[in-house]
Amino acid sequence: MKNSSHKSGAALQSNAPIHDWTATEIAASVNARTITCEAVARSHLEHIAAREPQVMAWEYLNPDQVIAQARVYDTAGISGPLAGVPFGIKDIIDTCDMPTQMGSPIYKGHQPKGDAACVALSRKAGGILLGKTVTTEFANRHPGKTHNPFDFARTPGGSSSGSAAAVGDHMVPLAIGTQTTASTIRPASFCGTFGYRPTHGDLRCVGVKEASGSLDTLGLFARSIEDIALYREVLTGSSTPAPIAEPGSAPRIGFCRTHLWSQLEPQTQTMIEGTAQQLARAGARVGDVTLPAEFEGIEDAHRWVSSFEFSRNFTWEIENHFEKISETLRNNRLKDGLSCSFDRYREARELLARCRLLLDPVFDKYDVLLTAPATGEAPIGLNATGNAALCVIWTSTHVPAVTLPLYKGPNGLPIGAQLIARRNADRALFSAARWVWNQCN
Amino acid sequence: MKNSSHKSGAALQSNAPIHDWTATEIAASVNARTITCEAVARSHLEHIAAREPQVMAWEYLNPDQVIAQARVYDTAGISGPLAGVPFGIKDIIDTCDMPTQMGSPIYKGHQPKGDAACVALSRKAGGILLGKTVTTEFANRHPGKTHNPFDFARTPGGSSSGSAAAVGDHMVPLAIGTQTTASTIRPASFCGTFGYRPTHGDLRCVGVKEASGSLDTLGLFARSIEDIALYREVLTGSSTPAPIAEPGSAPRIGFCRTHLWSQLEPQTQTMIEGTAQQLARAGARVGDVTLPAEFEGIEDAHRWVSSFEFSRNFTWEIENHFEKISETLRNNRLKDGLSCSFDRYREARELLARCRLLLDPVFDKYDVLLTAPATGEAPIGLNATGNAALCVIWTSTHVPAVTLPLYKGPNGLPIGAQLIARRNADRALFSAARWVWNQCN
Repeated sequence: MKNSSHKSGAALQSNAPIHDWTATEIAASVNARTITCEAVARSHLEHIAAREPQVMAWEYLNPDQVIAQARVYDTAGISGPLAGVPFGIKDIIDTCDMPTQMGSPIYKGHQPKGDAACVALSRKAGGILLGKTVTTEFANRHPGKTHNPFDFARTPGGSSSGSAAAVGDHMVPLAIGTQTTASTIRPASFCGTFGYRPTHGDLRCVGVKEASGSLDTLGLFARSIEDIALYREVLTGSSTPAPIAEPGSAPRIGFCRTHLWSQLEPQTQTMIEGTAQQLARAGARVGDVTLPAEFEGIEDAHRWVSSFEFSRNFTWEIENHFEKISETLRNNRLKDGLSCSFDRYREARELLARCRLLLDPVFDKYDVLLTAPATGEAPIGLNATGNAALCVIWTSTHVPAVTLPLYKGPNGLPIGAQLIARRNADRALFSAARWVWNQCN
Repeated sequence: MKNSSHKSGAALQSNAPIHDWTATEIAASVNARTITCEAVARSHLEHIAAREPQVMAWEYLNPDQVIAQARVYDTAGISGPLAGVPFGIKDIIDTCDMPTQMGSPIYKGHQPKGDAACVALSRKAGGILLGKTVTTEFANRHPGKTHNPFDFARTPGGSSSGSAAAVGDHMVPLAIGTQTTASTIRPASFCGTFGYRPTHGDLRCVGVKEASGSLDTLGLFARSIEDIALYREVLTGSSTPAPIAEPGSAPRIGFCRTHLWSQLEPQTQTMIEGTAQQLARAGARVGDVTLPAEFEGIEDAHRWVSSFEFSRNFTWEIENHFEKISETLRNNRLKDGLSCSFDRYREARELLARCRLLLDPVFDKYDVLLTAPATGEAPIGLNATGNAALCVIWTSTHVPAVTLPLYKGPNGLPIGAQLIARRNADRALFSAARWVWNQCN
């Protein structure tokens, strides 16, 4: 793709190709009957046809099925908050009319009976499901076939690899992934998209293959913060989505390096520190936040909670299809989980619960925290999906997170800035994120 | 069934029919090779053949399939904590070799690809899945065909109707249900079984149709507290189940009538008050517990949380099969849920979270709370499953609960006593429950 055409969050010229539009722009045009669903679908499908041989974002995509759906919508005169908006769904999420293969040979050709709640809500809002996006094996570490759309020699990140790459490459304006560790925020950062992990429990996960229920959430990918906010509203079942509220004043921003700061590449440190200074100059009250010492135990606790739950959740697959499970999965999460006693698991779970309560007072002083979503640019190679550590604290404490595609790294590849808010403050997070975005663009 | 043969929790004579044995007794005999899995299965199947025409506990049961499985286990020389133990599974829980029909015509004949985690863990431990037990429609209120085994004119309770009736009628020693409101504890009380709802999040729900994830748990039915403890260990993935620990001293028991006490039938009040006095005489420190005023808001908050989540979770069914959904479900939980905004839902969810924290200090003074599982005997009629209110506080606060089949009501029908412990204190709950059981028998 031409990076110079990448205008995340900015209103586009009406002569821009439809596949460069945001979801908000597409839905407005379809609802106003100034464009057809079929035209929208065709623009995206043509772009995909040109790009997919290199990007490989899709596990399943049938253009005829998409066009047929678009025509049904056009004939019916579809309207709704996502009217005519193409979207992609990570392939661990059930779809009634497309296979769900989980990135695993165990589920080759598997056709679920119904749609996951998030898919049905997207369709109810007028969205057009384009296809299933590539996932790592069971949303774990063993990678799929997807390449980073900004450099084919690099990983798109994982586990929501195809969703991130498809949105980053303008193949769809919206996609759904999931996050148990860093599986939305990290690939969003690597692929130059906005990424959002909601407050744990906010968005229904029925029909999504569970990795670790204590940690799992959906994750959203889009090319503007307005689209992220719109999609969240749709997925909470709202038929009249509320727009992002204007913040009354510049947000109070806690700059939170965390004890993992030294894992960042120096340029990433410099860019995020520069943003903190820039936002202070723009009127935000910016202060440094140091988390309590307990938070240094989160990475270990996350490991035991996620691996214990994962290894029990996948008992049927382990007992009946062990030979089809990758060495990566067997030797890491499964080995950890099957060796973990319930008592060890419970202790780890309790540490995470304590840290949730310890984090609350931080947000009495700050509206959002500014931190890194990843260590830097997407690493070279397709055999691994990058360092997930920067997201573990936030995933484990159930707080909402967004990453904004603010930077280009030393190789010209995207890097994001992550903002975190208090649990249940997702809408306030969007307000602050838009303010930050506007200051930096 | 002959009520006089109902010896819950007591060691049985070796000449008792095998279908009257507990799971612990069956597994010990199979592991010792003093009985075959086939003999165990045949005893249960013969009892079922005699009783099922009246009780109607089963949605799916294929005797040939069961015998074939038993012979495979016998040939292989199966061993394990549930070796040869027949178990039943509520029909909202996926099974790879039996349909899962959810008590709804929408899922008629539906065959899942894999086993739910709880089914796979049961089989891994040597258990023999007998069949699928009747559920109300989607584990909600619209009843299935099951009758109370102690009086066919009465409800078995719901939503885990068939699991409770099957265990209460000695058709299986173990069954799995679920609980979102009272769906395990209430039918266990009505059907004279031990019932157990674990700490929220302890037992994996992968492959179980979610009603309301913030509230849902598995629920276990058995005819002894030892069997409940054994099955919990199996479902946490332990291959060497820990036995119930002896309490160091008589437990401290908080007698908690709750603000709903007036909903109980007078005889139920008298029986539970009698137990509180009896336990005090036996050496327990017994005191009255009054919950904070916030707890009176739980029933309303539970209504909004459960209905909001349910109505989003079932978007695919609502949008594609609305005509196949019962009037009961449409006019209650779905109507509530679809009218509930996200803000109202979030406020309700936050009230429940506050109550969880408010309940913790109660357990600094008491090891367990003694309370009622239901208002009294199972009511007459099969069109409703009884009053669920007595369980709402405990379900909503995520604490573990057991009901013990301690009483016979004015019509000779079973009534239970419910014990509650602190979150994560499930094993201590079993210790206290066994002490209580032993004092009362």
